[in-house]
Amino acid sequence: MTSWTRKDLVSLRELSSAEIYLILDTARAFKEVLNRPIKKVPSLRGKTVVNLFVEPSTRTRISFELAAKRLSADVVSMESESSSFKKGETLKDTALNLQAMNVDYIILRHSAAGAAQFLSERLKASIINAGDGAHEHPTQGLLDLFTIRERKGNIQGLKVIICGDILFSRVARSNIWALTKSGAEVTLVGPKTLVPEDFRGLGVKIEYDLDKVLPAADVVMLLRIQHERQRQVMFPSVGEYISLFGLTKNRFQKCKSDVLIMHPGPINRGVEVDSELADGLNSVILEQVTNGIAIRMAVLYLLGGGKGPQELVS
Amino acid sequence: MTSWTRKDLVSLRELSSAEIYLILDTARAFKEVLNRPIKKVPSLRGKTVVNLFVEPSTRTRISFELAAKRLSADVVSMESESSSFKKGETLKDTALNLQAMNVDYIILRHSAAGAAQFLSERLKASIINAGDGAHEHPTQGLLDLFTIRERKGNIQGLKVIICGDILFSRVARSNIWALTKSGAEVTLVGPKTLVPEDFRGLGVKIEYDLDKVLPAADVVMLLRIQHERQRQVMFPSVGEYISLFGLTKNRFQKCKSDVLIMHPGPINRGVEVDSELADGLNSVILEQVTNGIAIRMAVLYLLGGGKGPQELVS
Amino acid sequence: MTSWTRKDLVSLRELSSAEIYLILDTARAFKEVLNRPIKKVPSLRGKTVVNLFVEPSTRTRISFELAAKRLSADVVSMESESSSFKKGETLKDTALNLQAMNVDYIILRHSAAGAAQFLSERLKASIINAGDGAHEHPTQGLLDLFTIRERKGNIQGLKVIICGDILFSRVARSNIWALTKSGAEVTLVGPKTLVPEDFRGLGVKIEYDLDKVLPAADVVMLLRIQHERQRQVMFPSVGEYISLFGLTKNRFQKCKSDVLIMHPGPINRGVEVDSELADGLNSVILEQVTNGIAIRMAVLYLLGGGKGPQELVS
Repeated sequence: MTSWTRKDLVSLRELSSAEIYLILDTARAFKEVLNRPIKKVPSLRGKTVVNLFVEPSTRTRISFELAAKRLSADVVSMESESSSFKKGETLKDTALNLQAMNVDYIILRHSAAGAAQFLSERLKASIINAGDGAHEHPTQGLLDLFTIRERKGNIQGLKVIICGDILFSRVARSNIWALTKSGAEVTLVGPKTLVPEDFRGLGVKIEYDLDKVLPAADVVMLLRIQHERQRQVMFPSVGEYISLFGLTKNRFQKCKSDVLIMHPGPINRGVEVDSELADGLNSVILEQVTNGIAIRMAVLYLLGGGKGPQELVS
Repeated sequence: MTSWTRKDLVSLRELSSAEIYLILDTARAFKEVLNRPIKKVPSLRGKTVVNLFVEPSTRTRISFELAAKRLSADVVSMESESSSFKKGETLKDTALNLQAMNVDYIILRHSAAGAAQFLSERLKASIINAGDGAHEHPTQGLLDLFTIRERKGNIQGLKVIICGDILFSRVARSNIWALTKSGAEVTLVGPKTLVPEDFRGLGVKIEYDLDKVLPAADVVMLLRIQHERQRQVMFPSVGEYISLFGLTKNRFQKCKSDVLIMHPGPINRGVEVDSELADGLNSVILEQVTNGIAIRMAVLYLLGGGKGPQELVS
Repeated sequence: MTSWTRKDLVSLRELSSAEIYLILDTARAFKEVLNRPIKKVPSLRGKTVVNLFVEPSTRTRISFELAAKRLSADVVSMESESSSFKKGETLKDTALNLQAMNVDYIILRHSAAGAAQFLSERLKASIINAGDGAHEHPTQGLLDLFTIRERKGNIQGLKVIICGDILFSRVARSNIWALTKSGAEVTLVGPKTLVPEDFRGLGVKIEYDLDKVLPAADVVMLLRIQHERQRQVMFPSVGEYISLFGLTKNRFQKCKSDVLIMHPGPINRGVEVDSELADGLNSVILEQVTNGIAIRMAVLYLLGGGKGPQELVS
């Protein structure tokens, strides 16, 4: 049985398959806790978690905050518009200060790829990467893998499409690592400008025609159009995007009847996915959200020295 | 004995008098808790409360937050300037996401009338309306009724003036329901443009001359001048407002000696009410604030399956 | 043995030396708690602490928030951009409202000198001054004194330099009171425009040439250049400031080998102090941050009726 030895969760690239499945199995035990009337366990009582969100994200912050509180940790939040950042303090100094306050975890969202790695090498506190630029968003990759496994039973051999802006997507990168390490057959789909050829080196297929690969897919993961991070030049009009890469009702006719529709949210209804499909039987978009809490509880618990699922069940 | 069966608190219009008094009696038991050195009970341990304030209101948010924490719930706040809203997510999607995080309560403040009703019909979580446009603000109506009852003993037959901007006031609407269901005789007073004739259909009187009705009043409830929500055209100058509808010292001379002066806050000292009167013996403005916590504890407790005051006392 | 009798902590000027050392001794006991795996004690369970930061300061807010949470208090935060302030409510009304919510502590950061004193005279809640204009920042003075005592054993006779913008610094003022009451020999150093002659009346020396006093110093406390609060006219260029008052490597050569380098943070690396020196063996800058939590726990505990260190140890 694998046991957890890392101080930090920076990327899925570096994790072994055994480590990934230790997190997933632990999350399964926590998911059961979330269905109880009292959704709380004392695992992290007296521990302090800081949400250091230099790039704002209410959803991810709240998901981590709820995960930490349900483990009985104390949580404080420090958002991007906070005064110390305005005063020009460096990320390292901010983090060292938090550590000097005997903080146990720093959950970092940052616009620069490598920010979480940078802190992980310099601090004793556990660093959890909650998204660093276009690099990784490991808990998102884990919750997506968890959701697929829960619905499909097994990942090995599954055909998974990741569709959209691959180039700028940390969600895509973390999913690529999680899925390929688990034996899925991943195909990246999107506009040529946003799906670079060299991703083939990661062990995935590339396809620019969604309709060609859609019929065989077991899972279609649609990425959010991130206007914020995209340069104007690379992106077609929204109408053109929908006609080529949107999961419309028409296009959905070609899918397997048990295809899973996934999206990291927040969705642009009618753009990446038809509004009715997003609410339909094939959609697991809200399950992803539910599973996100369980995954984050598992990560916090394991980084804090938790032994694993058998400790929780007994 | 009435017991609580509703999932949500959206409006006072829909509540029976028995339901209203079940909340008030439960709040009385919680008020006693607030006077203890340890102002905390374990009723909502392991439950999660989200303050979803799409329209900001620090006071009301803090009142609900304290009420929830004193019931041992976990509380997270999501304010209007939050990123998901900026990203154009709809209210329904935001709420469904929160529910997917196994949230038990959503306390909603929103600029659109009907927003709380909309969510209550679509979510399993309990929705508490913390103010929706000019529609209702039920916990304010309840805390005002609680305050009057505590001071006057009985509501039946009391003459209550609600003075100011009735047209745009959710506080007025919730108070009208609470007071008329309890047998008070309510008179609305204010500029003609802000006190529409058709409010008579709600079982209240309308009067445009404050001085005419003031001498007989048992309670004078002054509404805040809400520059934010008012259209310029309807409103007189501040000086003119004071001369016609401000509770000045001069005007106070005409009142009964035991008249109650009420205001939902924050007050504009010297506008709706003279500053000394606001701090004087007839003012119960700060008691309203204290009672607001007890009322909100009672509502959270009852929506969460609490049985009522006798359970708390025993 | 001194016992604590004050309701508030407004300034160090008014404290006796015995009171100051009661806080320091209590903080020493709490510092031990912070090194435990479970950094939490139940002292303030059921008590409510409000961070009322009319002038924003993420660091100080988080330090107080962690201190309060580790004492098991409930904490709510009310920041400067909050709506009630926007609505023009006065500080007094905001505070009275918080008190009406049965709040036990108000931690106030405000741009106006005297704001904490103003509230302390009008409220039953305990007021802790977290910085009021250029007046005082008592917990900063206490944590600095704590840090020096921990490293040097004794304050009596120590030569302490406080260098920088004395005129606008509440940190300087609180340190002057803490240090002179403890028998240290304090020398203020900085540009003539920022170190007024009349500070001599506080029992300190004044010197405009840092290099002259540096060799004899046991402690060098560097103040942050506060662009925000400074008027342009009084301040030299940053380059000129560094050349005259920055603790450069060159200048450090002249110091005693065991000199303590202190800074209240956030530091401007390469301005007030050389970046390597800030991270070096003589720097206690991060220890100040750690000790800040212990001091704030001690203050909250004593104002809440705590007996002192012997109660904590037993």
